[in-house]
Amino acid sequence: MTEDQYPDFGYSYQLLIKQLLLAPAVRSPDQEIVYRDQRRFTYRQFHSRVVQLANALTSAGIGKGDAVAVMDWDSHRYLECFFAIPMLGAILQTVNIRLSSEQVLYTLNHARPRLLLVNTEFLPLLKEIGQRLESIEEVILIVDDSDSRSEAPKPSREYEGWLASQGSHFDYPDFNENATATTFYTTGTTGLPKAVYFTHRQLVLHTLATLATYGTAAVQGRLHQADVYMPITPMFHVHAWGLPYAATTLGLKQVYPGRYTPEMLLELKKREAVTFSHCVPTILHMLLSHPASKDVDMQGWKIITGGSALPVGLATAAEERGIDIFCGYGMSETGPLSTIAHLAPSGERNAKRDIATRITAGRPVILVEVRTVDGSMNDVPRDGVSGGEVVLRSPWLTQGYRGDAEGSKKLWEGGYLHTGDIGILGEDGYLRLVDRLKDIIKTGGEWVSSLDVENIISRHPAVSEVAVIGVNSDRWGERPMALIVLRPDVEAPTSENIKAYMAAAVADGTISKFGVPDEVRFVELLPKTSVGKLDKKLMRDQFTAAD
Amino acid sequence: MTEDQYPDFGYSYQLLIKQLLLAPAVRSPDQEIVYRDQRRFTYRQFHSRVVQLANALTSAGIGKGDAVAVMDWDSHRYLECFFAIPMLGAILQTVNIRLSSEQVLYTLNHARPRLLLVNTEFLPLLKEIGQRLESIEEVILIVDDSDSRSEAPKPSREYEGWLASQGSHFDYPDFNENATATTFYTTGTTGLPKAVYFTHRQLVLHTLATLATYGTAAVQGRLHQADVYMPITPMFHVHAWGLPYAATTLGLKQVYPGRYTPEMLLELKKREAVTFSHCVPTILHMLLSHPASKDVDMQGWKIITGGSALPVGLATAAEERGIDIFCGYGMSETGPLSTIAHLAPSGERNAKRDIATRITAGRPVILVEVRTVDGSMNDVPRDGVSGGEVVLRSPWLTQGYRGDAEGSKKLWEGGYLHTGDIGILGEDGYLRLVDRLKDIIKTGGEWVSSLDVENIISRHPAVSEVAVIGVNSDRWGERPMALIVLRPDVEAPTSENIKAYMAAAVADGTISKFGVPDEVRFVELLPKTSVGKLDKKLMRDQFTAAD
Repeated sequence: MTEDQYPDFGYSYQLLIKQLLLAPAVRSPDQEIVYRDQRRFTYRQFHSRVVQLANALTSAGIGKGDAVAVMDWDSHRYLECFFAIPMLGAILQTVNIRLSSEQVLYTLNHARPRLLLVNTEFLPLLKEIGQRLESIEEVILIVDDSDSRSEAPKPSREYEGWLASQGSHFDYPDFNENATATTFYTTGTTGLPKAVYFTHRQLVLHTLATLATYGTAAVQGRLHQADVYMPITPMFHVHAWGLPYAATTLGLKQVYPGRYTPEMLLELKKREAVTFSHCVPTILHMLLSHPASKDVDMQGWKIITGGSALPVGLATAAEERGIDIFCGYGMSETGPLSTIAHLAPSGERNAKRDIATRITAGRPVILVEVRTVDGSMNDVPRDGVSGGEVVLRSPWLTQGYRGDAEGSKKLWEGGYLHTGDIGILGEDGYLRLVDRLKDIIKTGGEWVSSLDVENIISRHPAVSEVAVIGVNSDRWGERPMALIVLRPDVEAPTSENIKAYMAAAVADGTISKFGVPDEVRFVELLPKTSVGKLDKKLMRDQFTAAD
Repeated sequence: MTEDQYPDFGYSYQLLIKQLLLAPAVRSPDQEIVYRDQRRFTYRQFHSRVVQLANALTSAGIGKGDAVAVMDWDSHRYLECFFAIPMLGAILQTVNIRLSSEQVLYTLNHARPRLLLVNTEFLPLLKEIGQRLESIEEVILIVDDSDSRSEAPKPSREYEGWLASQGSHFDYPDFNENATATTFYTTGTTGLPKAVYFTHRQLVLHTLATLATYGTAAVQGRLHQADVYMPITPMFHVHAWGLPYAATTLGLKQVYPGRYTPEMLLELKKREAVTFSHCVPTILHMLLSHPASKDVDMQGWKIITGGSALPVGLATAAEERGIDIFCGYGMSETGPLSTIAHLAPSGERNAKRDIATRITAGRPVILVEVRTVDGSMNDVPRDGVSGGEVVLRSPWLTQGYRGDAEGSKKLWEGGYLHTGDIGILGEDGYLRLVDRLKDIIKTGGEWVSSLDVENIISRHPAVSEVAVIGVNSDRWGERPMALIVLRPDVEAPTSENIKAYMAAAVADGTISKFGVPDEVRFVELLPKTSVGKLDKKLMRDQFTAAD
């Protein structure tokens, strides 16, 4: 017998976003979805509103393959768009509203949405670029309680009224699971924003793997049906790491905080008893150092950080507050979940070793293949020492950059997605990131990880934030420079104090002597990218130019 | 823009069984897989053995689309076959060794395997049918420590020696995820065994959904990375409910008990500290009533039951021993996971209400659509009262019965898989099974669920096991008859005692007065099917004839 496909009489089940709603519809109809201090909905209402939005979009002429752009802070409306737009067969464009107006314009003209849903807070930006928008036929205004709709462009309608006038029934169509569901733009530090995109199949598989991975964690950091979820990475940024899809699939209570302010986030954490969140390290730092955080019991709050390295000092500070802190690794191109630093179940716990594990990139998620390779795609040893570029396969990676065949081919060279990160795989299965391929400091024939140096300096009691960059050196090629934001409440150290502080790390072999910065500068602020990462490109430009 | 598929430069990731091995290879290389008191392997060794098996199969000429049959008890070898055979692109046929020799012959000639792996324990059976086997070119003998290979048919080789001679490298091919991975036969109480079949995609999705569902349970019954897994439903029966795939994907310690004997199961539970199992109610009953169970601490042992209804009496007995008992629902055709009776996270716990919930069929698993419908495929109300046939959609249902176009079309009538079960959906989301469509007792214009009557009688202190069937009645159409196995250690009741015992349930409205059996018989044994279910067809034949 040489027949590998048996006959098919059944329903051809495509993996579509609509199916993520099957279980919660039955399990959690009365569970809540909360928006700031302004609105509360049950899942029953959420389902009705998604139906109304689907009807509204359809009546606006939106159908299969049409893009619809959204500009909003994290909200119940965004969650409705996460479902209704792709469930129609249309494509949700999540607009990064932290980009410059010119970049927003570029991404809108590139994705060519027919409809734009926009929070009135962004009308000034829209006014600036409105004349040059090429594809948008209609604008739907999202009006927060705190705002008015004075400067509305024409033609426009208001979201709540638009929904209210719609019918309460909609048959979501079946279609091919490889239809694109979402698109957004990733901005490196150079070049134009690049369009990544994800299919229904990819988002459903990402959701399943997220639940399977977070759910089965043995020691800490597990997601379960009694959790209360609040995102603190924006929904416009890689679907808030896919957690809104996962939380909805589980039927969790969800809390959407709108624009991130430490006061509101802390207030919501407290009032709604939030148990599961995710953020970049800078936001974690902001939350912990805010005066209002003193009044918030953070015991047991599970927080995943990602986007950039979590300094051990910040992780320790979070743990001292009772936060169950751990890292994940991924990027816009990877959907994003790739590895997660749950503690392994074996053996006795050791606080110091555990925190060192929690700040690694973690171990591969189910179905993810992680390799570290040299320039010829040969694996470097998984010995905890050898570094190589992290390359990936998983079922939910962007299949390219839309409209950029050359960039797409480069991204996928050799059949693996190239992350541009240098990592070390250990025998324990954990991935440790060394640096971005472009941020690593090449000094005197050695490679020094800017992250390692930052990690050491971050432990100094006077240091609030630190960035380390390579600056040109005639003699050494590059040399590390440290840029430090000091704590206001601790006596300020000198450059020499910082260098002396690093001597211990050199002495115990944590870092080579070439890693000690020649220059230490104290600054008021560190430049960040639109998604809150240290903008080392800008720092290199500024501080190399300043020399 | 009307483009719904953005371009594709990436790796075309097919959902293949080989990818389930990616995470455990990195996470748990030193974790153990145990076979009875005979063998222990690490995952590292397991991976090598799967490679060797793949090489051995290839050298025997097995390739894409070829079927390979296995006849063994639950073992590490079976687990190796679960992976190596489909990972080659071949099809694993799991042979139900509890069938009659004629039925085994039928299934082997129907699936047409080229190769048969057989435990020497089944050589007498093989001898009986060997001359009539049409497709098998070679037999590989599995020799347990306790057995010898005296009666080996020619040509044949021995499994361990066959593996040992193989190379240690194999490149598992990529292929279409819709390739068939496994097939086996389901036997109703009438007609020939029917071939169900599952693809790589289906098994991978079933595994993800199993992990996502069991992992995220809030109150009890959760599966996590520190569990120790032991199947107590056979691997030949719906892949032991898919748990071996799930356990391997998580890198759990696994314990394979070979042929099920209460002594060995209880000994392994104790010695290997098993925490997660599944079985049919009759096996649970056997374990709890066995004298050796007194010496086994069962506290915290998570056991899912399925296959037939779990009587409340048995559930209570299990709970009294500290077992975390709960039910799942599915069948051979459904892969099987469809619903699972995890307790909902909300509210205070109430032991009586909780046990009533634990013995329901449960709530729909992620991605599973459950409907209860009338004969015209209209939904009956989800009101906790109205019964209808349970019909399903999920991504892992058999797409038909191979070689039976008519049966396949009937199975999938109206685009939903027909389970043949009558169920009631409640507003709480839980499915309660009333009866098999063919076992329900139609008496005087009312429908009486044989399961309801069994449940009530099972609580009588003298009752060990009970079956209720409908027997013909000129006046009422059918009337219930109860067949009871008594406990040896309790004073025996009379028929009238049992009927009187039921009067309370009639009085409080648990059951209609038509549900009280006219006749109660005390028997030594209840006939069971090959998978341990009550064989009511046989009982009806016997007891109706005896009248």
